[in-house]
Amino acid sequence: MQTTPNLSAPRQVSIALGERSYPILIGAGLLGDAASYAAAPKGSDALIVSNQTVAPLYAAQLAQALAGRHRQVHQLALPDGEQHKDWATLNLIFDALLTHGADRKTVLYALGGGVVGDMTGFAAACYMRGVPFVQVPTTLLAQVDSSVGGKTAINHPLGKNMIGAFYQPRAVVCDLDVLGTLPPRELSAGLAEVIKYGPIADMAFFDWIEAHVDALRALDADALAHAVQRSCEIKAAVVAQDEREAGLRAILNFGHTFGHAIEAGMGYGAWLHGEGVAAGMVMAAELSRELGLVDAAFVQRLTRLIQRAGLPVRGAVIDAQDNAGRYLQLMRVDKKAEAGEIRFVLIDGPGRASVRAAPDALVRRVIDRCCQ
Amino acid sequence: MQTTPNLSAPRQVSIALGERSYPILIGAGLLGDAASYAAAPKGSDALIVSNQTVAPLYAAQLAQALAGRHRQVHQLALPDGEQHKDWATLNLIFDALLTHGADRKTVLYALGGGVVGDMTGFAAACYMRGVPFVQVPTTLLAQVDSSVGGKTAINHPLGKNMIGAFYQPRAVVCDLDVLGTLPPRELSAGLAEVIKYGPIADMAFFDWIEAHVDALRALDADALAHAVQRSCEIKAAVVAQDEREAGLRAILNFGHTFGHAIEAGMGYGAWLHGEGVAAGMVMAAELSRELGLVDAAFVQRLTRLIQRAGLPVRGAVIDAQDNAGRYLQLMRVDKKAEAGEIRFVLIDGPGRASVRAAPDALVRRVIDRCCQ
Repeated sequence: MQTTPNLSAPRQVSIALGERSYPILIGAGLLGDAASYAAAPKGSDALIVSNQTVAPLYAAQLAQALAGRHRQVHQLALPDGEQHKDWATLNLIFDALLTHGADRKTVLYALGGGVVGDMTGFAAACYMRGVPFVQVPTTLLAQVDSSVGGKTAINHPLGKNMIGAFYQPRAVVCDLDVLGTLPPRELSAGLAEVIKYGPIADMAFFDWIEAHVDALRALDADALAHAVQRSCEIKAAVVAQDEREAGLRAILNFGHTFGHAIEAGMGYGAWLHGEGVAAGMVMAAELSRELGLVDAAFVQRLTRLIQRAGLPVRGAVIDAQDNAGRYLQLMRVDKKAEAGEIRFVLIDGPGRASVRAAPDALVRRVIDRCCQ
Repeated sequence: MQTTPNLSAPRQVSIALGERSYPILIGAGLLGDAASYAAAPKGSDALIVSNQTVAPLYAAQLAQALAGRHRQVHQLALPDGEQHKDWATLNLIFDALLTHGADRKTVLYALGGGVVGDMTGFAAACYMRGVPFVQVPTTLLAQVDSSVGGKTAINHPLGKNMIGAFYQPRAVVCDLDVLGTLPPRELSAGLAEVIKYGPIADMAFFDWIEAHVDALRALDADALAHAVQRSCEIKAAVVAQDEREAGLRAILNFGHTFGHAIEAGMGYGAWLHGEGVAAGMVMAAELSRELGLVDAAFVQRLTRLIQRAGLPVRGAVIDAQDNAGRYLQLMRVDKKAEAGEIRFVLIDGPGRASVRAAPDALVRRVIDRCCQ
């Protein structure tokens, strides 16, 4: 007798960090299923932190799924957008926790994209010096990248993600169904972080993305499941080796050095994070080529895929007078910089990356060539 | 031939936390001695964070001692006082770091009392998700308690130390000479945390304090050295067993539950932290007696020593209408509280403490009896 395979069973990726290990669940219909949250502590109160766009769509469903786990389930909707990823908005979470008399066992649930996840995670890291939290990412970008690995932060006017903590969630619940309500622009922004994993770690995955980018943009369920799973697997392997970014982990920031400069230079929220990363990857690939690490064909192939994903392949002009100078100024406060020297994630060859410095003149040339 | 013993060699206590272990140095003349900072990373920039009272006295001396270790040594003086232990003041540290282009290897030095240490430590925990820091405590309270063990935090209007992190320094440098410039009121406040270690852990040390309290108040060097060393030893032993306060570590908060309510109820800065703890210890001892855990003679003996240390033995009236009610309200947001139930550090018998709940009616009686 054959057993029927359970086609709807969620895929699972594990982040191996000793006593801070946790599961990433990937599948359809997970958000409203109480079983998805089995890794979260039971019995205490909970606070769902979301934003004003996502909360009306999914907060009630999540609250219902959690009703059996927690004594009381409170909700908070933050203003939506990267420009609100600051202390004032973070403090709304602390205010809510203290107003509800939340104690050290209260569990926070981050229901939203990268901004909600980063802020809720940082609030969980700091409230009473640390309470448990669960990531329920509702954007592709958060599912494949920001909700995984424990990086939490808020922005400072002088730099992105400058104030934060390494603080791991108890679980990440990636419900693929919610991607159906994602605006196409946000879906594309998420694809930037999916594409990223190819050049830095896995060119076979890059081949697969090239073959399935149209399916991904059309929200094909199988394609999305594989993209999320493979992205999380690569990220999990890197994070398990270097949780606090002493070295290797920095390669996950491919495209981010230029990308953060675009985001900060244009004003947070003007470009989506994934859009900055997209143009930033082209610029970092160009810089790799200038340094003789990859050939023009590789840069073209990457650029073409980014374009097919609906993403920008040229950087923004962030200063009409001295565009390259402004990029350099913003990139000097990047967290990878050391002693004022900017360090870039460069492609050593397809599927391999490393972090290194580059001459300013070369960087300026790349910026001049890559910005319209 | 006899060798001359080096009488000025610093005493050393070690905090054993695996790869996060660090030394506490205790002795005269340490602050201005470059050798005291050997455990701090070398070569990067440094930022000395102090306050407007302490900086004029010692910042130049510390900067000189660090000149050979760091490329550049920047300085920042925060406004002085518990009422400034908030986000706005914390942000002055981030502003300074970003303005100076501080990177992930920049070392922060906390030069001051508990407020400076807590805020600098929290800034170090959060800046770029963690940079190294060193504690250079200049008050007795900071030397015997707050600089040791990695608790960092800021206050929230709704509760003390509500937002923070467990984040260990690379070293603690306790220069006993600096206690000579400490106002007598601050010296007494520090003695509260010294006295604390007796009832919770070591009655032989309590006997010693009774015999030496006058010498301590007169700044006798040998007495201070022993008090700081023994306090750090006890704290180190507790922290090594329970770094993140899952259980045992909470006994170090003897007197703090009532004390925090006094501090918050009177407005931060009106009572010194040590003064709140002093009156709070009498109240917690009274509550222990009400529960039949200790006898009246023990409470009297503790009260007498606190009084001889120049500290308040009666709680403040923080609400003219419903004083006990206001205490209870404030104590319910204490970090030890669970599901709205206040948990007190009680004395199980001289030298032994545990954390437990108590009936509200009993707590009210103690508050009514202990406040003037």
